[in-house]
Amino acid sequence: MDKILRVNVGNRSIKIEPVPEAYWNLGGRALTSRIICEEVPPTCDPLGAYNKLVFAPGLLSGTVLSSSSRLSVGCKSPLTGGIKESNSGGQSALKMAMLGYKALIVEGAPEGDGWWLLVVERDGARFEPADEFAGMGAYETAAKLFARYGAKVALSLIGTTGQRLMNLAGICNTDPESRPSRLNARGGPGAVMGSKKLLAVVWNEPGSHPIKALDDAMWKDAAKVYLNEVRTQPGTSQRFPQFGTAAVLETCNKLGGLPIRGFRVGQDPATEAISGIRMAEVIKERGGETTHSCMTGCAIQCSNVFVDKQGKEIASSMEFETNDLLGANLAIFDFDAIAGFTYQCNDLGIDTIETGGSMMVAMEAGLIEYGDADGVNRMFEEIRAGSPTGRILGMGAGLAGKALGVRRVPVVKNQTMSAYDPRVIKGNGVTFLTSAMGADHTAGNTIGSQTDHLDPKDKVAISKEMQIVCYLLDIVGFCNFARGPIAAKPESFAQLCEARLGKPLPVSELRRLAIDANKWELDFNVQAGHPRVEKLPEWMQQEPLAPHNALFDVSEEEMAKMWDEE
Amino acid sequence: MDKILRVNVGNRSIKIEPVPEAYWNLGGRALTSRIICEEVPPTCDPLGAYNKLVFAPGLLSGTVLSSSSRLSVGCKSPLTGGIKESNSGGQSALKMAMLGYKALIVEGAPEGDGWWLLVVERDGARFEPADEFAGMGAYETAAKLFARYGAKVALSLIGTTGQRLMNLAGICNTDPESRPSRLNARGGPGAVMGSKKLLAVVWNEPGSHPIKALDDAMWKDAAKVYLNEVRTQPGTSQRFPQFGTAAVLETCNKLGGLPIRGFRVGQDPATEAISGIRMAEVIKERGGETTHSCMTGCAIQCSNVFVDKQGKEIASSMEFETNDLLGANLAIFDFDAIAGFTYQCNDLGIDTIETGGSMMVAMEAGLIEYGDADGVNRMFEEIRAGSPTGRILGMGAGLAGKALGVRRVPVVKNQTMSAYDPRVIKGNGVTFLTSAMGADHTAGNTIGSQTDHLDPKDKVAISKEMQIVCYLLDIVGFCNFARGPIAAKPESFAQLCEARLGKPLPVSELRRLAIDANKWELDFNVQAGHPRVEKLPEWMQQEPLAPHNALFDVSEEEMAKMWDEE
Repeated sequence: MDKILRVNVGNRSIKIEPVPEAYWNLGGRALTSRIICEEVPPTCDPLGAYNKLVFAPGLLSGTVLSSSSRLSVGCKSPLTGGIKESNSGGQSALKMAMLGYKALIVEGAPEGDGWWLLVVERDGARFEPADEFAGMGAYETAAKLFARYGAKVALSLIGTTGQRLMNLAGICNTDPESRPSRLNARGGPGAVMGSKKLLAVVWNEPGSHPIKALDDAMWKDAAKVYLNEVRTQPGTSQRFPQFGTAAVLETCNKLGGLPIRGFRVGQDPATEAISGIRMAEVIKERGGETTHSCMTGCAIQCSNVFVDKQGKEIASSMEFETNDLLGANLAIFDFDAIAGFTYQCNDLGIDTIETGGSMMVAMEAGLIEYGDADGVNRMFEEIRAGSPTGRILGMGAGLAGKALGVRRVPVVKNQTMSAYDPRVIKGNGVTFLTSAMGADHTAGNTIGSQTDHLDPKDKVAISKEMQIVCYLLDIVGFCNFARGPIAAKPESFAQLCEARLGKPLPVSELRRLAIDANKWELDFNVQAGHPRVEKLPEWMQQEPLAPHNALFDVSEEEMAKMWDEE
Repeated sequence: MDKILRVNVGNRSIKIEPVPEAYWNLGGRALTSRIICEEVPPTCDPLGAYNKLVFAPGLLSGTVLSSSSRLSVGCKSPLTGGIKESNSGGQSALKMAMLGYKALIVEGAPEGDGWWLLVVERDGARFEPADEFAGMGAYETAAKLFARYGAKVALSLIGTTGQRLMNLAGICNTDPESRPSRLNARGGPGAVMGSKKLLAVVWNEPGSHPIKALDDAMWKDAAKVYLNEVRTQPGTSQRFPQFGTAAVLETCNKLGGLPIRGFRVGQDPATEAISGIRMAEVIKERGGETTHSCMTGCAIQCSNVFVDKQGKEIASSMEFETNDLLGANLAIFDFDAIAGFTYQCNDLGIDTIETGGSMMVAMEAGLIEYGDADGVNRMFEEIRAGSPTGRILGMGAGLAGKALGVRRVPVVKNQTMSAYDPRVIKGNGVTFLTSAMGADHTAGNTIGSQTDHLDPKDKVAISKEMQIVCYLLDIVGFCNFARGPIAAKPESFAQLCEARLGKPLPVSELRRLAIDANKWELDFNVQAGHPRVEKLPEWMQQEPLAPHNALFDVSEEEMAKMWDEE
């Protein structure tokens, strides 16, 4: 990981650059955001010549250490109008790091209408024509690319939605069994990739090899401690492998903060039909897979493969956010329906959360009824066809609301809230309003905190700490679920970093870096015209959420001062 | 004009308030903007409870002095996200002033889904149910309201587009012959009115009488001087009555700065078919009307009535901006087609400029071909039906571009540029980029300035002066075409103000007021998240305009400092 690959889609030039010294401790989100802040004008058109799309694995990615190969993709977001980092599992970051790349920067404006592949190898890259794949679903594109380049490559590709520049569009990364099911989903990075006329990146196999730590002995010792934690902590050894993210649905429902029926109630017994426990039962009864890995080497294995009654795969993976935003929040309490939607989202290459927001808007507008799974499938076909209705939904919930005259839209920074109602899960409300990322739980998820979520007290501090921790994980390339093992043995974690990089990088320095990088992002957004602290949509400020009749009441002043002392 | 009428659409309360002393010299745009700045939070949802819709005639409106009864409507714009004043002719301001109102403030959030009329009389107002008019075209609604309230009332009403909260939607005001053809068009004030569930304001007749000046003798003397100028200056006595605004098309085409075929060229001999001179000939040949008044008492009479070959009215009035944005810029060089579009816009209650922008986007997206008038009519039917395509176009050019994946969209502050290409008519480019109003020529039109429009030199100063003058006219309620007579006799103009108001209000004070009020607006926008100086869309920064191969090159720094010394 000692090279930066810079490609210009205009003249299709390809450059390999050395990693600037100042970037030595930057990985993942910190690196994508650093490059965006240094190279992209905050006021630029997100789909224009001056925006860039930056791919970066984490600092420890490529080592095949459990849960360490998350992929950050950064850009100015066409959805939020601010800086964005979107984070994904799958094989891409692993392969990218194994080819020796610390970052891929895609820049420039395309000439002509043709579509292109970028084939990345150890010693360079090349553009290849890709028109034959335009208009295909992600599964078909992936299958054809694997057939051409071999089963061992990894792919980062866009579906028809990215090709159509829709805000819903993410970037699909392939999992170990070649599904294009792991998305840099949020904020429309797929539309930015589409605007560059780049249909897929093929992370080619020849010359790729696992990253060796610079101090092998120190690495092995520290990795052993870390893996022991992974294998013994109740979350990473039992709850996550069995239930994955889906278990959070019960938690949120119990707290009364689960978005249900268009963010109208926070708790409903009907959600028992789609609980994480029930999901694991159904998957096992039918012969599907729980305890499935999204990337090679993961020992947590929170992913799953959902199958139908005949045991045939519908989709991988069923996640909490999807089960809520495309399930409970649409009054659809049916795994088979939600699994079908999940497949649609993966094949279309779109964010399940934002898509859920658009579907809610379609229901608020009366295009379909709450609870109507067939109606939702019709809407997916509209998106696939690029019909006018599909184009409206493709803009995401905020703009679809503007098109359809719907004001009851659950967005912050024009982005659909993930499945934590901020009126009850108030720490996540703070994250939604203060993070540069918008309504994105991955920027600082407080759901696991031991706190009274309804009480506004301390929620700024709790969100802040989680924003730092989540950022730190994004820098090293770790999955959020690795947080427990790392927190239990911070000294081993520091050893992993030092062994890998050849220089000490203690947790205190990583925290400092996370805080600084977060500030770069916030400054970018201010220059792009964003306020330092956002507001919830007016309807949500006014409408108390049953059963707690809760409103979001964390002090704006406190949020405004959140980062002042850092 | 000694009262303010404040109505709340939630509890349907009606209050008559005295005019605060501080408002004595405020009228029109200065008054709407002052009230918006004092009462509306800049970050509010434009279609929510906290936005307000403010109607205000000018300081001299209601006197029936020629060209003095323009209506300002102010709000936070759902199109631009900033403060907006939209200015209209017609009978409404005249009647409103004659009933004694200096402002109408519509506030609150509606309860229930019912539509309402507001019937305004000298001593108060009342709400009346209006569900029977929902879904009707503006012409039919107006006819029914005149039938109910009598031919002498004036109306301010919204069409189906305002009812659907479309950004295209303006507020239709009736002309002396009862056409709902004079719109507060720009920025979506009709959508704000729709969000309040207010379908129409009926400015009722009983108790209305022309405003008397406080010093009748001074008024008569000064009015005589002013009218003499109107009747002798070449513009107001010949050019405007004969050709109206339509004559500007030749001017812009000659300069090479007329938007043609999607802002692709600035000059084309094909535009001769739709020149202002040709238009007057056609109207006369067919027995239509030039030299038509949009408001009672106007001595300039720049309006017209366009008729078909059988002499049957198609639309009133054919204007330059429409002839370009719905004509030349769509490669449609045919008066009958454009007149049909004008009627559609009036009946739908939409801004012809923004609609032209949406139609251009439809052409860029390939929904219809350039030059296809039938296609444009099909798009109007989509807007009328509120179909998904109509909903997309209804958002205006900027958001329609986002929906359809079109980046070649001619907007500033998300608003379609009026018919002056800023790459050539650079003073108007400065106005578009620096005015709180966005891409709106009425905020400071430099086309009449004696200058080399292509030369960036002095364009900041010229735009600034025109922004002040246009603001000043908007305060007193004068039409832009009255500028010449006023400029020729500023002392008589000051006498008119003093005679009307009973206190001296010299031009120097009015200028000061215009500058101050402009700053209130700019401050509102900064608080709403707008930059002080906008940028042209990136494609327009990069694409030189034939035949001059011109790019906009006025110094950003100079624009940024524009108001510093004031």
